[in-house]
Amino acid sequence: MNLKDKIRTIQDFPLPGIRYRDITTLLQDPQAYRELLDSLCEPLREEKIDLVIGPEARGFVIGAPMAYMLGAGFVPVRRPGKLPAEVYRYEYALGHGRDTLEIHQDAVVAGQRVVIVDDLLATGSTAQAVCRLMEKLGADIVALCFAIELTHLGGRANLEPYRILSTIKY
Amino acid sequence: MNLKDKIRTIQDFPLPGIRYRDITTLLQDPQAYRELLDSLCEPLREEKIDLVIGPEARGFVIGAPMAYMLGAGFVPVRRPGKLPAEVYRYEYALGHGRDTLEIHQDAVVAGQRVVIVDDLLATGSTAQAVCRLMEKLGADIVALCFAIELTHLGGRANLEPYRILSTIKY
Repeated sequence: MNLKDKIRTIQDFPLPGIRYRDITTLLQDPQAYRELLDSLCEPLREEKIDLVIGPEARGFVIGAPMAYMLGAGFVPVRRPGKLPAEVYRYEYALGHGRDTLEIHQDAVVAGQRVVIVDDLLATGSTAQAVCRLMEKLGADIVALCFAIELTHLGGRANLEPYRILSTIKY
Repeated sequence: MNLKDKIRTIQDFPLPGIRYRDITTLLQDPQAYRELLDSLCEPLREEKIDLVIGPEARGFVIGAPMAYMLGAGFVPVRRPGKLPAEVYRYEYALGHGRDTLEIHQDAVVAGQRVVIVDDLLATGSTAQAVCRLMEKLGADIVALCFAIELTHLGGRANLEPYRILSTIKY
């Protein structure tokens, strides 16, 4: 199956000039969703992953089933005010503004092997923020996984030296 | 395993007087997460589910792996402005305020067999909103599934006549 055929492209969303790659049409197709998840997990099967880390909210849709498939736990990274216990916070530039992510301080134990999962790799700024939180917690980042990679935006270079896996490339 | 032992209770979050049941401590434990997901899927194995429907954002963490496990697609229900294509919208009372959920108009085909999944059943107002959207789209609602049910809040009665599955009851 060509998974790209299952992605819907929407012009000028959320802003004029942006061609939005809509993954919902892929998610609602059981074969395509399964094939996407299998392709992302396949290189990680022997890696003994402890935790899958997913930023809110679309990272949950790809990362949570990968956690199940890899026999790992799942850790949500969230916008401010959503997590109830003590958090670490990281503020970063995103587009023309700033965004902030939080993670529970006890979400990861130093030395645990983690993969960071999101739906889309664009400039990589959200994934970078998650990497900084993981480094603070002492996690061993095995790979960063994305359903879709927009290769012309240079996200892969911004995430060096980490290993990047992506399934659908534009 | 007693899954309740994996839930962390936090007093006065997000508001004074609320005992918040924090599922993140369960999610980060691979055995507990797997056991939770297996227990929710087990009664649905023979039901030929087409789609799992999950409201943003914690519904994704339980619903997305269930979709994979059941061989179904996954449909996100989101807050306004997140979905890029044509949506149906439902506004409803939640706590002391109002909330609004949206779903893509082409997310479900009439007659498809769906389960609605969220992390927590409290009063059931969010799940009710999702039911109204499913009814509008002509879906066949097979069951509503929740990781945690707060039984004293009457959510189960508010969701009649639908079948309710929950794993951890308080």
